[in-house]
Amino acid sequence: MKNIIVIGATGTIGSAISQVLQNKGYEVIKASRHTENSIDIEDTESIKTFFTKTGHIDSIICAAGDASFGSFSELSDEQINIGLKSKLMGQVNLCRVGLQTLNPNGVIILTGGILAYQPWPESTNIAMVNAALEGFVKALALELVEGKRILVVHPPFVKETAEAMQMDGSRCPAASEVALTYLQGLENEENGKALFVNENHIINQ
Amino acid sequence: MKNIIVIGATGTIGSAISQVLQNKGYEVIKASRHTENSIDIEDTESIKTFFTKTGHIDSIICAAGDASFGSFSELSDEQINIGLKSKLMGQVNLCRVGLQTLNPNGVIILTGGILAYQPWPESTNIAMVNAALEGFVKALALELVEGKRILVVHPPFVKETAEAMQMDGSRCPAASEVALTYLQGLENEENGKALFVNENHIINQ
Repeated sequence: MKNIIVIGATGTIGSAISQVLQNKGYEVIKASRHTENSIDIEDTESIKTFFTKTGHIDSIICAAGDASFGSFSELSDEQINIGLKSKLMGQVNLCRVGLQTLNPNGVIILTGGILAYQPWPESTNIAMVNAALEGFVKALALELVEGKRILVVHPPFVKETAEAMQMDGSRCPAASEVALTYLQGLENEENGKALFVNENHIINQ
Repeated sequence: MKNIIVIGATGTIGSAISQVLQNKGYEVIKASRHTENSIDIEDTESIKTFFTKTGHIDSIICAAGDASFGSFSELSDEQINIGLKSKLMGQVNLCRVGLQTLNPNGVIILTGGILAYQPWPESTNIAMVNAALEGFVKALALELVEGKRILVVHPPFVKETAEAMQMDGSRCPAASEVALTYLQGLENEENGKALFVNENHIINQ
């Protein structure tokens, strides 16, 4: 059985991913800032400590990382840095450290977001970071060896989040549907690709 | 006559852009770290000082900004930060400050690069930054008012650079050809788009 680390496992999407993988028989190691063997992707030392404890693993899925909403003219340096430090460099540093511990034929799946392609007003920071992750993944794929792969999923806004914000979530997929795209990335043979949840969002490149 | 600031005007692409615009009758204000009224896009105070001196301007083209080549497993934090601080946040901060000085109907054109779509090995830092700029531009376009526009050009490797590196540049466009794409961005009505130099590179989204 393959062991898979799910980072951000306590979040809406991360917990759905963990559930879908467990249902398929994978051994899921749930990790977050709040788990016993904790990991904070904003802190490279925390990432290193985490992987020292896990030893070799078969795959890594990351559904953690923050970025800032806010109008461009009012975003502070600090708000912009959240996106750069957390969702972007947090996941890049996860790859830098995690690739050393990843078994041959293992895959790392990062989380971007559809705002890279279909932005909303006040999403400059998030759109920038999500797009950056796709550029990164495409380039990193060219350097991987031993059958290792790297992918990014671009989830849309999910039903649970919409409803928690008292918005109409009827046109949003549930987190469990989004989780199936991560499963697909885990089980297919693709490398250096962005995966989209909703067929309507698929952009061929 | 419209005045246009070209930042990075002493570089290979920047000087070609300046020449093409001057040939078309635009008033070009050439700027770089080395010009009399200097601008260093890595230093937000320098950007602010620059625009305080220029007063209102009609358009801004940026062909400045560095990022690091290097194998992913060997890139240092410092090398990665060059891309984030210079080519990415340098251009983002240029927009933050420059939009306040830009006249209505003015356009800002940033420089990404085709490595966002067609990466080479050892281009993770550059591909990430180039892609980030496209996500940023798409999102920022939704917030602009008074007819202001934002675009990013994704140039390929240019003939002059290839030849300076003693590589075969016969399949690369000359900087003067790349410059025409910036002119097109200046004169068309598009907003929030990526522009590609070579028809073969055009990716419709």
